[in-house]
Amino acid sequence: MHKTIIKLTCPDRVGLLARITAFIAEHGGNLDEVHQFTDSQAGWFFTRMAIETETLRLPLAQLRAEFSPLAAELNAQWTIRREADKMRIVLMVSRLGHCLADLLWRWKAGELPCDIAAVVANHEDFRTTVEREGIPFHHIPFTPGEKAAAFTNIERIWTDAGADLIVLARYMQIIPPDLCHRWQGRIINIHHSFLPSFVGANPYQRAWERGVKLIGATCHYVTPDLDEGPILEQEVIRAEHFHDTEDLLRLGRDCEKQALARGVRWHLSDRVLLHGKRTVVFRD
Amino acid sequence: MHKTIIKLTCPDRVGLLARITAFIAEHGGNLDEVHQFTDSQAGWFFTRMAIETETLRLPLAQLRAEFSPLAAELNAQWTIRREADKMRIVLMVSRLGHCLADLLWRWKAGELPCDIAAVVANHEDFRTTVEREGIPFHHIPFTPGEKAAAFTNIERIWTDAGADLIVLARYMQIIPPDLCHRWQGRIINIHHSFLPSFVGANPYQRAWERGVKLIGATCHYVTPDLDEGPILEQEVIRAEHFHDTEDLLRLGRDCEKQALARGVRWHLSDRVLLHGKRTVVFRD
Amino acid sequence: MHKTIIKLTCPDRVGLLARITAFIAEHGGNLDEVHQFTDSQAGWFFTRMAIETETLRLPLAQLRAEFSPLAAELNAQWTIRREADKMRIVLMVSRLGHCLADLLWRWKAGELPCDIAAVVANHEDFRTTVEREGIPFHHIPFTPGEKAAAFTNIERIWTDAGADLIVLARYMQIIPPDLCHRWQGRIINIHHSFLPSFVGANPYQRAWERGVKLIGATCHYVTPDLDEGPILEQEVIRAEHFHDTEDLLRLGRDCEKQALARGVRWHLSDRVLLHGKRTVVFRD
Amino acid sequence: MHKTIIKLTCPDRVGLLARITAFIAEHGGNLDEVHQFTDSQAGWFFTRMAIETETLRLPLAQLRAEFSPLAAELNAQWTIRREADKMRIVLMVSRLGHCLADLLWRWKAGELPCDIAAVVANHEDFRTTVEREGIPFHHIPFTPGEKAAAFTNIERIWTDAGADLIVLARYMQIIPPDLCHRWQGRIINIHHSFLPSFVGANPYQRAWERGVKLIGATCHYVTPDLDEGPILEQEVIRAEHFHDTEDLLRLGRDCEKQALARGVRWHLSDRVLLHGKRTVVFRD
Repeated sequence: MHKTIIKLTCPDRVGLLARITAFIAEHGGNLDEVHQFTDSQAGWFFTRMAIETETLRLPLAQLRAEFSPLAAELNAQWTIRREADKMRIVLMVSRLGHCLADLLWRWKAGELPCDIAAVVANHEDFRTTVEREGIPFHHIPFTPGEKAAAFTNIERIWTDAGADLIVLARYMQIIPPDLCHRWQGRIINIHHSFLPSFVGANPYQRAWERGVKLIGATCHYVTPDLDEGPILEQEVIRAEHFHDTEDLLRLGRDCEKQALARGVRWHLSDRVLLHGKRTVVFRD
Repeated sequence: MHKTIIKLTCPDRVGLLARITAFIAEHGGNLDEVHQFTDSQAGWFFTRMAIETETLRLPLAQLRAEFSPLAAELNAQWTIRREADKMRIVLMVSRLGHCLADLLWRWKAGELPCDIAAVVANHEDFRTTVEREGIPFHHIPFTPGEKAAAFTNIERIWTDAGADLIVLARYMQIIPPDLCHRWQGRIINIHHSFLPSFVGANPYQRAWERGVKLIGATCHYVTPDLDEGPILEQEVIRAEHFHDTEDLLRLGRDCEKQALARGVRWHLSDRVLLHGKRTVVFRD
Repeated sequence: MHKTIIKLTCPDRVGLLARITAFIAEHGGNLDEVHQFTDSQAGWFFTRMAIETETLRLPLAQLRAEFSPLAAELNAQWTIRREADKMRIVLMVSRLGHCLADLLWRWKAGELPCDIAAVVANHEDFRTTVEREGIPFHHIPFTPGEKAAAFTNIERIWTDAGADLIVLARYMQIIPPDLCHRWQGRIINIHHSFLPSFVGANPYQRAWERGVKLIGATCHYVTPDLDEGPILEQEVIRAEHFHDTEDLLRLGRDCEKQALARGVRWHLSDRVLLHGKRTVVFRD
Repeated sequence: MHKTIIKLTCPDRVGLLARITAFIAEHGGNLDEVHQFTDSQAGWFFTRMAIETETLRLPLAQLRAEFSPLAAELNAQWTIRREADKMRIVLMVSRLGHCLADLLWRWKAGELPCDIAAVVANHEDFRTTVEREGIPFHHIPFTPGEKAAAFTNIERIWTDAGADLIVLARYMQIIPPDLCHRWQGRIINIHHSFLPSFVGANPYQRAWERGVKLIGATCHYVTPDLDEGPILEQEVIRAEHFHDTEDLLRLGRDCEKQALARGVRWHLSDRVLLHGKRTVVFRD
């Protein structure tokens, strides 16, 4: 079954669901899966609807055009997308390759519905790993004083690749604020701590020093405020006194891989809706 | 805000959600929360809708009457209930009081939206615990050869109490098949293992002997087939080699309390829909 | 079997375990359970040994006297205690009673090997709950400007009760620094967040605002630095977008109860060894 | 620091730990890490001791020789091994490659202290994946009526490779009983269910039908009784009503990878001690 996905958020008001389902019914659409959430603290409405594409009487472009006036009236942010039109993503990595390897494996196994358009790295370490999968590998090193130029190159790669989503898979360079703004809601990072604990550098060392009994990882959208973006997913694992910093790094890798893979998967299937600092995630 | 809850399951067909939301809109109902699930393997549809009671233009009885023909046409099993009309429950217990104490505490704290109409026990141990909360306590002992008589008494208590739900909170007598049939979908049990592992007696001892690394508890509806009823919730905890059977009993109690409390809470708020051996749980 | 417990920490050096086990063997002691940990990052040694009391040829006082010179030579902090000599504890509570009720229940069920000498509260709410268990209840209210006097009273209760351990079971008054110092390592608190996230007030509200996907609770020793004391245990539970602040409070209560109960149990059985900001916990 | 590991199990008796630590002290050994466990239900003693190799005054072979009489007297099963002498392992795989890929990645990352001597598969699918890591790949297909011959070949590969451990990484052929006997305690399997639930074929399908709310994976030693061998590790993940069998397969893969990787790691570092159907695992 092919699916067409409507994703929509707007201020809450009476009868929203009925109006949207009526619109779909009007065009013959058979609903396969409906998620709805009303955040009454924020007065905001969120929905995701999966329609059987075959039942729709209009082609995609026309469906969007017909939906536009209703969406405008509702003051909505929305997308309508065919599941089969996979998003294009660019992976960014530095010297720790566990998330990269994990994402590549899941992508080949069909767990991540996307095309990987390119991998960008500030080191050469993973060229072979990437190129043997038939994916273009771009080495953009950082030399002092030329950070701006590097990011200009990087954004060009993103744009040329037609990227819908950028995934920072343990990429250790800070994305400049203007890039964050232009790509808002389209850059996902994995932070190696259970945010908001241990914002910034060396979280595992600091977790060891603080003596926490659980360590974690956080998958979040990137915003100009470092490690402050909306959270998609978090994962934790028990830490015990006999785990030194090296052990925490090892245990943490499993958290990082899982939190990132889930967050990316949900984004790719239009299951994440943003509202300020919070996300609505219709998990699968 | 007061809520009216529609809970419905029926064979899947096109346009179900639109028809039901349209019916609600027709009667002025403002939807607060909608859950929908289509089980495509089984070809079955499930929904739960919470409507703001104040926006409905009909009283409850009339709303039900108006809904009847639609429901009949859809071949649906359904209820419409006001959240404020709390279900009445009867708790059953033997000699282990941790689930009883936990449920009583949660009930007083407002976590379990119900009235506790009575507690039935086959021992006297918890009379004080129960009566000091103002709840009637019935001691129905089991003497050899008089099991049938005892269960006749028990069913009379259930009926007299106007019970909507029976909760077996570590009740160690097996409910007779005819009672299971008459009260189908209205008796919840907590089994002290991670089903289908260790069906039957002494699960912790058998878990120890098998050397499992996680133990658990299962909250399920009671059916004539022992420990085979539809599962509402399960909880697990790590077991290590240094845990002897006594330790497993202790650790397991925490699983039992949580799995039972969650299952009961979800039933009480119309969040559990049954289909054969499976449950659909719209968690909160 | 009765047990005598040696708990010891000291700077690491060669042959520590052999020397201590030799001392025990010399006095006829049969070891039932031995835990040892060397923190090589800190250069520190930790051990807990459970000896069958019946096999020891010396009474407790004399065993301690004989052990003293060895311990002094090792520069050790240590205790030798008979498990049967239960610690005496004082519980402190404000207006949220879930941890109090949970600890009382576990104590009656034999999960917490201690005597509860008294409960101190700054409100009257739980007098009946406490007194019907035969435990003295002290109401020490806080009136503006008389905080010091209140804590003088409180410390007198602790001292008169012969308290080995103070447990803050959702006690919402900040313990003054001098009390923290005098009772160092003998006051356990439950904080209603996954520390170091959300230090201070209203953690659930702040967790909701930050949109975290897991919430938690932290059981820690109290030090003059608020919420900065060594952590004994942490527990987490998943939070989803549909959980409002009230839901987080409800879910968090289960984390709080479990983390506190485990931390207290481990302290009561000499399973927690302190070193700076970190704890070594030989779990059971 | 180089380590020498003593692993020992024997019937329990007084003074075991003192005698063994005394033996080590006699030969100059500095203990870095000691684990001990007495199973009082079974009357059995288990220990693992890590000694700093540099402090030992005897070479390995001589240390073993000196230890022999003591071990014989204690009726012990034991090994003494230098951590630096990595075990050699052979991986077995069929058509599902997630565990294979995961183990290869962890091995390269240094998480699995071993040499991978060979990979054996009954299909050609992963030849490239394996050979590009410089590991020999053996394709041993199964043709009807020639199962015995295939396993003769397989055992020859194991023997020629000098294998210390065989890892069945989703290998879908049943190991014949005689092979199980000859390689007892040296074959580790991952079963794709939370044993003892769903022994045998199609566990995810059966988990879906039973409607369990958690699914899992079990890492265990292989014995002639299918899926009945001693368990090293188990992992679980939540399943909800909206997960169909395909989803369970996907979620289960993460459990399988983790449970297998941990079990193998612990075996490779002499952290697993067997006793009948149970394992003692001194986790790291």
